[in-house]
Amino acid sequence: MKILIPGIDGYIGWPLALRQLSLGNTVCGIDNFSRRKNVEEMNSHSAIPILSMKKRLDVLKKAYGQKINFYKGDLLNSQFVDEVIKIFGPDVIIHLAEQPSAPYSMIDQAHNIYTQQNNVIGTLNLIHSMQKHSPRAHLIKLGTMGEYGYDPGLDIAEGFFEIEFKGKKATIPYPRLAGSWYHWSKVHDSNNIMFACKLWKLRSTDIMQGIVYGTKTKEIENETYHTRFDFDEAFGTVINRFCAQAVIGHPLTVHGLGGQTRGFLALSDSIQCISLLIENPPEVGQYRVVNQFDEQYSVMALAKKVQRIGQKKGWAVEIINKENPRLEAEEHYYSAEHSILQKLGFKRTREIDDEIGIMLDHLLEYKNRIEEKKSVIVKNIKWQKALQSSPPT
Amino acid sequence: MKILIPGIDGYIGWPLALRQLSLGNTVCGIDNFSRRKNVEEMNSHSAIPILSMKKRLDVLKKAYGQKINFYKGDLLNSQFVDEVIKIFGPDVIIHLAEQPSAPYSMIDQAHNIYTQQNNVIGTLNLIHSMQKHSPRAHLIKLGTMGEYGYDPGLDIAEGFFEIEFKGKKATIPYPRLAGSWYHWSKVHDSNNIMFACKLWKLRSTDIMQGIVYGTKTKEIENETYHTRFDFDEAFGTVINRFCAQAVIGHPLTVHGLGGQTRGFLALSDSIQCISLLIENPPEVGQYRVVNQFDEQYSVMALAKKVQRIGQKKGWAVEIINKENPRLEAEEHYYSAEHSILQKLGFKRTREIDDEIGIMLDHLLEYKNRIEEKKSVIVKNIKWQKALQSSPPT
Repeated sequence: MKILIPGIDGYIGWPLALRQLSLGNTVCGIDNFSRRKNVEEMNSHSAIPILSMKKRLDVLKKAYGQKINFYKGDLLNSQFVDEVIKIFGPDVIIHLAEQPSAPYSMIDQAHNIYTQQNNVIGTLNLIHSMQKHSPRAHLIKLGTMGEYGYDPGLDIAEGFFEIEFKGKKATIPYPRLAGSWYHWSKVHDSNNIMFACKLWKLRSTDIMQGIVYGTKTKEIENETYHTRFDFDEAFGTVINRFCAQAVIGHPLTVHGLGGQTRGFLALSDSIQCISLLIENPPEVGQYRVVNQFDEQYSVMALAKKVQRIGQKKGWAVEIINKENPRLEAEEHYYSAEHSILQKLGFKRTREIDDEIGIMLDHLLEYKNRIEEKKSVIVKNIKWQKALQSSPPT
Repeated sequence: MKILIPGIDGYIGWPLALRQLSLGNTVCGIDNFSRRKNVEEMNSHSAIPILSMKKRLDVLKKAYGQKINFYKGDLLNSQFVDEVIKIFGPDVIIHLAEQPSAPYSMIDQAHNIYTQQNNVIGTLNLIHSMQKHSPRAHLIKLGTMGEYGYDPGLDIAEGFFEIEFKGKKATIPYPRLAGSWYHWSKVHDSNNIMFACKLWKLRSTDIMQGIVYGTKTKEIENETYHTRFDFDEAFGTVINRFCAQAVIGHPLTVHGLGGQTRGFLALSDSIQCISLLIENPPEVGQYRVVNQFDEQYSVMALAKKVQRIGQKKGWAVEIINKENPRLEAEEHYYSAEHSILQKLGFKRTREIDDEIGIMLDHLLEYKNRIEEKKSVIVKNIKWQKALQSSPPT
């Protein structure tokens, strides 16, 4: 199969490309390197050093031959997207080229506009090019469980659910109540893609993914192939950040009470899930939503896990509750369906405790690189800072 | 009160400005004249000639003194929006500056991108400026009943409804299942505004408006004050188009079976409703949704109404069913709640038959201008044209 990966240079894009090459598929990547630039803007860097794209491609060509190709460019450039899709003719497009950070989108107006513009218009260009040049390809778009939000206190369905209203029944999209400009940009994309499937009979899988953690998959064990690992407040995710903090003896910083419950998934299992979805495409015209995570934990439970595993290694690991910069409930009901991937054959390959242990050992090798950027681990990007400075009524 | 109207040069913006001036309010308008340009792009013009903005302002200054001000500019220019809101300090912002045509957004990729970019990013700039400079102003955003779509066969609630799922109850947004790129852009805006109300405690009324028809309100009886009247396929709405067709002896063109049922509202009553909403703002932090229409009709029932009223004038009025260019059910259940405006005191001031009669007489004065653009009355902007040219699987 021919697999196009916009966002190939990212945390998931890179190990996914290696997995697909290992499976014998042909891979074409697109990236504008915005992740590298935006992490630099946060005055941070990947804890694990990664190669330049030129070097990445060199090592892949040695390992997999001519099965990999790369175009530097931006999804906002519709002509570029048209050309790549026309020339490559993908069977599958895995769209990982969105600005993926909620805190980054909440910094200020410019970061919100950048996020929504990049994500909404970039995705529109991608689906228009598909419609013109690859209408039967399978579009896999990476969304997030955060599109549903955590407000209504209902069980979370997998994309759609049946309800009754005034004596009539209907199956409708599960409500989206996102909690950041970034999360809303993903909702807008989900809505646009759902419509494109109806309008043009495109086929798409929209992944509502939980929070991914870890540094390894079987293809990237070797240092040459490592994927990036962010730990700054904008681009680092919760378990990864706790592990980076533990490694340098920084207290694990829990937002508020830490009762926020989310779904989680090891990097290795995220790659497994996406690969399963590639092997099992939806029907022509179908818009399929899958909730992609393995286990649910509260943030505090995870902090305690990292603490316990660190302590076993003889480290002193402290947990502190800091003021929650986000606008979210710190204790809430959470129960989300996630059965589609299990039906497709998903099986957990890593236990979370093992993975955290592996990650702590792995990050220890890069302790100095984390130390160096210690000051950006907590930046306090506040959801409501501007409100607090508003004049009274 | 100080009323800011982005989109003041439009079909509703102009008579709304006059109503607000008549009520003694101070009005500031913004426009980039995109409506004039986009109708020209369709090779059409307003059937009723309208003055240039310079002349419009001259006559208003004579009639109402210094209570009116105007800035030419674009909501995509965040600095411009900041400056206007900072200088004017509005109590109410009535946001009419969106690209308002579904067919226009469906022409091709460029028109879709233009629509979503203009609407989503323009609205984001507006709410960011509000948050910075007028956080207690009341934002009235013009949405459309089309945001809900016509698919699920449920009764349509007014913004939110209570449902039960797996034994738990919650009040959630009524599902949005829009049917064009334009309609989805309005859904994205609704979602962004709902979040801004939660995040920044802005207050907003989101109007899900039915289809507006008519040429007159009490302030624009006099020719000097007329508002524009579009009848081309992109910018003309259904009753207005039927009346323009009847005036020049063109058959009334019904899309498909004509069983599409929608809510409708006379221009004069749309202005009444918006004025009621201005007088009755929501609470600080409240995101209020109102369904703004008066009566429900099917498209075929309206065609027959226009035919009957035209025939009474001795005109020959034919109805033809043409291939439906849209992707929509041509027969469906439709029942939408609309009680909030009634509770605020809305009373119909025009009967639809009377208004159609008045409109036909009024348009007769401009028969030549409609004749002149006869060729653009039916352009066949097809929702699925591109699909039909796709290669088979």
